[in-house]
Amino acid sequence: MTTKAYGAHAADKPVEALAIERRAPGATDVQVDIAYCGVCHSDLHTVRSEWPGTLYPCVPGHEIVGHVSAVGSDVGGFKVGDTVGVGCLVSSCQQCPACNDGLEQYCEKGMVLTYNGPTPDAPGHTLGGYSQRIVVDEKFVLHIRHPADQLAAVAPLLCAGITTYSPLRHWNTGPGKKVGIVGIGGLGHMGLKIAHAMGAHVVAFTTSEGKRQEALDLGADEVVISKDAAQMNAHAGSFDFILNTVAAPHVLDAFIALLKRDGTLCLVGAPASPHPSPNVMGLIFGRKSLAGSLIGGIAETQEMLDFCAEHAIVAEIEMIAADDIEASYERMLKSDVKYRFVIDAATM
Amino acid sequence: MTTKAYGAHAADKPVEALAIERRAPGATDVQVDIAYCGVCHSDLHTVRSEWPGTLYPCVPGHEIVGHVSAVGSDVGGFKVGDTVGVGCLVSSCQQCPACNDGLEQYCEKGMVLTYNGPTPDAPGHTLGGYSQRIVVDEKFVLHIRHPADQLAAVAPLLCAGITTYSPLRHWNTGPGKKVGIVGIGGLGHMGLKIAHAMGAHVVAFTTSEGKRQEALDLGADEVVISKDAAQMNAHAGSFDFILNTVAAPHVLDAFIALLKRDGTLCLVGAPASPHPSPNVMGLIFGRKSLAGSLIGGIAETQEMLDFCAEHAIVAEIEMIAADDIEASYERMLKSDVKYRFVIDAATM
Repeated sequence: MTTKAYGAHAADKPVEALAIERRAPGATDVQVDIAYCGVCHSDLHTVRSEWPGTLYPCVPGHEIVGHVSAVGSDVGGFKVGDTVGVGCLVSSCQQCPACNDGLEQYCEKGMVLTYNGPTPDAPGHTLGGYSQRIVVDEKFVLHIRHPADQLAAVAPLLCAGITTYSPLRHWNTGPGKKVGIVGIGGLGHMGLKIAHAMGAHVVAFTTSEGKRQEALDLGADEVVISKDAAQMNAHAGSFDFILNTVAAPHVLDAFIALLKRDGTLCLVGAPASPHPSPNVMGLIFGRKSLAGSLIGGIAETQEMLDFCAEHAIVAEIEMIAADDIEASYERMLKSDVKYRFVIDAATM
Repeated sequence: MTTKAYGAHAADKPVEALAIERRAPGATDVQVDIAYCGVCHSDLHTVRSEWPGTLYPCVPGHEIVGHVSAVGSDVGGFKVGDTVGVGCLVSSCQQCPACNDGLEQYCEKGMVLTYNGPTPDAPGHTLGGYSQRIVVDEKFVLHIRHPADQLAAVAPLLCAGITTYSPLRHWNTGPGKKVGIVGIGGLGHMGLKIAHAMGAHVVAFTTSEGKRQEALDLGADEVVISKDAAQMNAHAGSFDFILNTVAAPHVLDAFIALLKRDGTLCLVGAPASPHPSPNVMGLIFGRKSLAGSLIGGIAETQEMLDFCAEHAIVAEIEMIAADDIEASYERMLKSDVKYRFVIDAATM
């Protein structure tokens, strides 16, 4: 089944229109006609081979929302016409402890990512959501319960949403907790909305005074300019949890110092070059932790989507046409996006 | 009350005999006639001003065992003749959340260390256990329930023991858990004994093939030579918890890779220069944590002492005379000690 898509044939080639093949739905497959796909920074890293191992042609996209257009004979959870989402994963071993715990993103045999992952389908690696159609095993398809007119803004929940929801939930964000969100971009703006909805006291950290009002509007109770030492010191030793969404290398000690005893600074972005090494004394005095977290499992992603539907949470987006993907990457590199680009698949 | 002690008058002066004053016991004080005091690497760092802030004269020593020789009028928990211990702390605010949680080592007003801490007593900073007598508020005095002939070997439990016991307990070491102990020195050899007694499967990590049999004798179920990549890889993704006692800068990623999902690498030693910055991807893939831990609280220290008495755990020691302290430092710097020097206070 030939499908229109956008991707690149090589690291130094632009993202452009191309035709790809999708498998006919198998017994447990759901065929999704894609309506919208968010543009994640990982898309850019992968399609330009900034991370090792990109296979071409490369069709990025893992923030997918659409409607079911066919289902396999054994599919029980979905029917034609359902509004659905597909996130960062399309398969996992389903047998290891991580899969058994509903944490397929940590599959010990290796999860299959929605793009650039191994698959028996041609061309041998998965092709993502910058396309008009995708076929996915129903175990990795999510129900979308938001109003129909919000679907474009739902798309980024499938990566930016779950990447922030999962650690906020794992480290028990909620009423009575003081939670920091570092970086007010694609991930951080979702973190503010979600942590606020979870009932925490939410503090936004940004280097930009110009983002103060926006951060408050997004759900922050307070805003701290992280390069202002006096503002930072005023919060020393007071945070239960800080979610750091910034991938650029920066000094982590300044945030570790803001944690309470037994607090955790969790990183969800990996810098291209290392952060300055954290001061071990900062961890020892207060039994603090520096942790990482990767997207989320499928059950947890469904829980996140339902939570966001219930709390009327969507991403702040700017809709683009497929021909604007390369331009959107350039703007993303300049942080010129509030806060996520979403491709309208009808423009392909 | 003049007391014989050993200490230094300046960073570049040797540890030598000197006379210090101890306060007369107040209403809540316990006066301890010191029998033995362990030699901790912190003693050397402090007395030689390798860490900032050393005040002179400096009398180190915070692994103290002795007998009660007097008690204040309001002391309820101790009587003359009791065998007791004093560890790293002699005071804290007793009011902050940490103190209320029995974690005085994280006192938010700042704990008072057994030496080099602020005190109204002359000379204005605390003087430690390299002395014949010490006076301590009963809240910071511990009961020793080991047999009388083991007291010298009990002394190191007050720092090396609690520093390893506290994180092993906090991170739920026990049956069914696979636990690593990195470094087989003063702290590490206690970690092996304690983790073994807690019922965990214990793996010792050492750079020295020569320590293999010793580590097994100390309680390790397996020994891994940490510079052997093949041996390390065989344990990838398998540890619930790794306690790292090595303060020399080294690559932490190799140990983070050995953790299971949600596992923790806990550091109890702070390097003089930073470890290479840990790879963030190593934390993200597996939701792993890099943490720190500092000695332990008073209630927990009593629990540790009772646990060790019950399981017949003491440190492996080499007894020295007070005049040998400087020589013991030089041997410690060459790792020429199995595994802890203990000063016989009768030699002062």
